[in-house]
Amino acid sequence: MNNHYLNQECSFEKVPKNIVKKNSCCSPWLNFFNQQSAEHQIFSLKQHDVLIFDANSTLYIILAGCLIVKKVFRNRKKIILNLLTSEDTFGHTQFASSHFYYEVEAIDVAQIVSIEYSTIMSICQNHHKFSVFFIDHLLLCSIKANRFMEIISHKSITNRLVSLLLLLSEHNGISQSNGIFLNLAITHRVLAQIIGSNRVSITRIMSELVQTKLISIQKKKVIIHDPILLSQRFFK
Amino acid sequence: MNNHYLNQECSFEKVPKNIVKKNSCCSPWLNFFNQQSAEHQIFSLKQHDVLIFDANSTLYIILAGCLIVKKVFRNRKKIILNLLTSEDTFGHTQFASSHFYYEVEAIDVAQIVSIEYSTIMSICQNHHKFSVFFIDHLLLCSIKANRFMEIISHKSITNRLVSLLLLLSEHNGISQSNGIFLNLAITHRVLAQIIGSNRVSITRIMSELVQTKLISIQKKKVIIHDPILLSQRFFK
Repeated sequence: MNNHYLNQECSFEKVPKNIVKKNSCCSPWLNFFNQQSAEHQIFSLKQHDVLIFDANSTLYIILAGCLIVKKVFRNRKKIILNLLTSEDTFGHTQFASSHFYYEVEAIDVAQIVSIEYSTIMSICQNHHKFSVFFIDHLLLCSIKANRFMEIISHKSITNRLVSLLLLLSEHNGISQSNGIFLNLAITHRVLAQIIGSNRVSITRIMSELVQTKLISIQKKKVIIHDPILLSQRFFK
Repeated sequence: MNNHYLNQECSFEKVPKNIVKKNSCCSPWLNFFNQQSAEHQIFSLKQHDVLIFDANSTLYIILAGCLIVKKVFRNRKKIILNLLTSEDTFGHTQFASSHFYYEVEAIDVAQIVSIEYSTIMSICQNHHKFSVFFIDHLLLCSIKANRFMEIISHKSITNRLVSLLLLLSEHNGISQSNGIFLNLAITHRVLAQIIGSNRVSITRIMSELVQTKLISIQKKKVIIHDPILLSQRFFK
């Protein structure tokens, strides 16, 4: 079996299923699953790979990478619902509607674990430490979802973009001598899609941020020189 | 003690603390808390009462009513983050920042239970059935938060308003012979605030919906005659 179809009827993309070992030592999820001998699968997504979930009960855990969750209506209109990064989860409950379905798109390479929701609940039943870990995770998810909501709540596109860059710096940032490096190959088109704008506006605002030395670009990736200054400049 | 201050420094409003018994028979939360003799408080909010939570670790459970969650920045700018109805929870984790705090505003009378987060986690430790109940609740919350995100994701104010009315009909609607009655005294100003618009636009769109017989108004409350038709008219 070389392909992993999340929904046989609607799947847009075939997702290669590669067993990835490199994160298994450091992910608390995998530690729990291995301890409990719980059946799960690990696979990787390339940039722009899409997973569809509309009527399954599988929990997906992101080991690495960055993805956007979209609701897709029958008329093909798509709404961005959330931005997911490492340790986030999605698809954890039953969805059943003929009017819409959900999909996630990898905006950079990503590694994901999938596990049946029934398996998760059975681990919760037998392993109290996991229940508490899962509750803590879900509480954290609700805060992260609020953070994404904040981005969209801004009326100004510049404020939305700055807010998104700050969120990405928290979740995907690597601290280095000249600031926080966003280790994420994300195009202006995708940034526009996330904040409900267009590529031309994103390119203009990014150029202004570069000119005012708040950010710089290194090998197509963003460096935020001083996240506190950037935040103060726009939100104080 | 006649007043309940959620934050001694910032509290805008004094919230009368009345022990309310009428929901205790039907709320699974109260059943669990009573079973476990867990210390908790029940109090009621009037329309426009505000609770502030910026550095506490209390979980609030809504027994009845409808509230909006806002993030308030130091410059007093407010962002609406979520709309909460019966059985929803808020304030369940630590917040500590000098730049912002959170508040909830009752948009109609509401009844709320407060319980220390540490008490919740201790019930989880000792009472497995509660852990599973709490996990199911948190999973449901994430879906509900997505529904609110959808409202804000629409660019058209009409679509936002229709989407909000449909969400309210699901959570606060009472089925009656001529449609779904929104049992909620919610002003056009508050509707405008929730969807990021102004009172004049809301009044105009509501009048259009009344003229096209999609909704009608009864004692200042909305009746949606056919939610499926309303949804199809705007989102298909």
